[in-house]
Amino acid sequence: MKRMILAGLILLCTHVADAQTILVEKQRFETLNFMTESGEVLPKVSVGWESYGTLNEKKDNVILITHFFSGTSHAAGKYQENDPSPGYWDALIGPGKAIDTNKFFVISSDTLVNANVHDPNVITTGPATMNPQTNKPYGLDFPVVTIGDFVEVQKRLLDSLGIDQLYAVAGASMGSFQALEWAVRYPDKVARLLHVIGAATMDAWTVAALEKWALPIRLDPNWNQGDYYDGEKPTAGLSATVLNITQDAMHPVIYNASFPNFEVLDDGAMKDIRVLPKVNQILAQRALARAALQDANHVLYLIRASQLFTAGMQKNLDAALAKIQAKVLLMPSKGDLLLRPESVHTLYTTLKKLNKNVVLSELDGGWGHLDGLFSISPKHADIAAFLAE
Amino acid sequence: MKRMILAGLILLCTHVADAQTILVEKQRFETLNFMTESGEVLPKVSVGWESYGTLNEKKDNVILITHFFSGTSHAAGKYQENDPSPGYWDALIGPGKAIDTNKFFVISSDTLVNANVHDPNVITTGPATMNPQTNKPYGLDFPVVTIGDFVEVQKRLLDSLGIDQLYAVAGASMGSFQALEWAVRYPDKVARLLHVIGAATMDAWTVAALEKWALPIRLDPNWNQGDYYDGEKPTAGLSATVLNITQDAMHPVIYNASFPNFEVLDDGAMKDIRVLPKVNQILAQRALARAALQDANHVLYLIRASQLFTAGMQKNLDAALAKIQAKVLLMPSKGDLLLRPESVHTLYTTLKKLNKNVVLSELDGGWGHLDGLFSISPKHADIAAFLAE
Repeated sequence: MKRMILAGLILLCTHVADAQTILVEKQRFETLNFMTESGEVLPKVSVGWESYGTLNEKKDNVILITHFFSGTSHAAGKYQENDPSPGYWDALIGPGKAIDTNKFFVISSDTLVNANVHDPNVITTGPATMNPQTNKPYGLDFPVVTIGDFVEVQKRLLDSLGIDQLYAVAGASMGSFQALEWAVRYPDKVARLLHVIGAATMDAWTVAALEKWALPIRLDPNWNQGDYYDGEKPTAGLSATVLNITQDAMHPVIYNASFPNFEVLDDGAMKDIRVLPKVNQILAQRALARAALQDANHVLYLIRASQLFTAGMQKNLDAALAKIQAKVLLMPSKGDLLLRPESVHTLYTTLKKLNKNVVLSELDGGWGHLDGLFSISPKHADIAAFLAE
Repeated sequence: MKRMILAGLILLCTHVADAQTILVEKQRFETLNFMTESGEVLPKVSVGWESYGTLNEKKDNVILITHFFSGTSHAAGKYQENDPSPGYWDALIGPGKAIDTNKFFVISSDTLVNANVHDPNVITTGPATMNPQTNKPYGLDFPVVTIGDFVEVQKRLLDSLGIDQLYAVAGASMGSFQALEWAVRYPDKVARLLHVIGAATMDAWTVAALEKWALPIRLDPNWNQGDYYDGEKPTAGLSATVLNITQDAMHPVIYNASFPNFEVLDDGAMKDIRVLPKVNQILAQRALARAALQDANHVLYLIRASQLFTAGMQKNLDAALAKIQAKVLLMPSKGDLLLRPESVHTLYTTLKKLNKNVVLSELDGGWGHLDGLFSISPKHADIAAFLAE
């Protein structure tokens, strides 16, 4: 267990690349007149994408990767040899790996309203984007967007490359929502669905947890109803949000194991209510560093997109799931405190009842929700076999 | 399971009193020149207290009840026949009940910096109290106080009543911290310790979770570094804090079960980012109502007192625990996401190793942390037996 935790921590800190890590390049995709599910038209949408492996002549070797809430299209590889870490699923995606880029053309795109707007390798469209009608950032005038909208942008991207069929679509967490939505919306185009630490629909627990993430941003006076692009940013609120997200994505056992020298007694915090305990100071600094790449409004829009997710975006979930033709591999995490494994068990039972080809394989690495990123290695053979069939 | 959930929900909503519910009266205790653990002197400290049952002549039938974070001294009974609900442990405490007020004199007091300052039945001293040196509320000039300070105030209260021995001390959650601190600090005065959904020391997970509760208050511009007693209160921040606390005290399974008609699709939330999903509106309203009785600074001070808790308030926890002479009954909750059962298992092992008389009996009612309030009924016989021995 200790060795596993240490390995996980190293992963968390550096994502040590192996010899098979490939070099990748960010591409830009633009599309015009995009009608959102909420009924508004965006004159122009831009998103970043990257790919690993080669598209074959028949264009039938495509695997789409859809990213998680705090993630980007950087699923594998490095931009530069000396990047401190490769993409988040680099252990899974690459030449000879479970998602073998010697066979497959793997493509991953940034979503709309991606959180990490200020990451130079992210291209996205959202409230921080210039509104061509006002020449100012959209702010809260940006329409609510949905997981379905994320899928439609990806659809246009694939269309632009002449890709009509997906050998598979795979995503973790919010990425699993998009992957499932693909299989429901375009059943004849999706042959395989890898659904990791995910859900088929939101429950009250997760919708409430997501709202807890939104609260600090909205309370920060600098947020100013989303209109802050000319002034001070709501950095304190956004950092608090990042702090919330980080803890909710973990499990207490491993969280505590990652602070082996934790000391309760804290002279500074005892002497002055204004001084945070040391561990909270460290956590706050880490959150601040991560928040520097993010935009607060984008995070609010991601929260809303997630809160409104139910596969097929219709009242009858079973009817939506009945449309699926893809073979399905479900990988919930046993200790997930954010997207609960029992809801994925329900999804499994429903798909079985609907005579779908579905397998459930539970992750149990101790990280809770983050097992979908950090503890997927033991499942590499299962994933390779799922893709080989 | 369903019946259990329903029963729990009814408890949550009304705490239906049974025929054995007694009438109680709030008392006031005042003490002068109280030196805090952080080294400052409070010229005057007032706390409320109430009692159930009769103090015998030998004064050796006393059971002290110490309250949880969001709680008050109202552990049992009603103030008026028509109160909507009795004290939080009324099912446990009363004539003929597990903590039998026909035998015992049960006493319960408000802590320092009690959250519910605006509850007319709460008497407490904290940042909202007038500072006699300035004739203004203390605000953040109030010293940091600790669980040890809460115990010392209770000690003075008991001294004032001529009580020197505790037949037992019992508390849930933050109440368990105080109860344990009593047994460590005054080993020759505490014969029995009932420690429910508690801990012996803070871990990084809980210290971080507590800080998440503090963040919304500090982000609310009305908080104004704790100086808001002349102006608008930080109600939005405090409500967000209450929302956080409520969710952290529950378990997702029962949380979701308490929203059986939950619907993801939400037209208002889809059309406007400024409109919360309906479920979040309901949760926000409930939190706002609860926040109306609370003071934001008091909550911050309670957070700090909890973050700094380690039994004995010294570096060597085992040495502190070694002092205990009380017989101990530990009741963690299996699904507790706030104060983890594994840390209570560690406490059990340590006490065993120290040759203490200790029993571990796990709660498993599905509520998570709140099992300590809502699912303690199945343990009534165990508790009665523990007290009878």
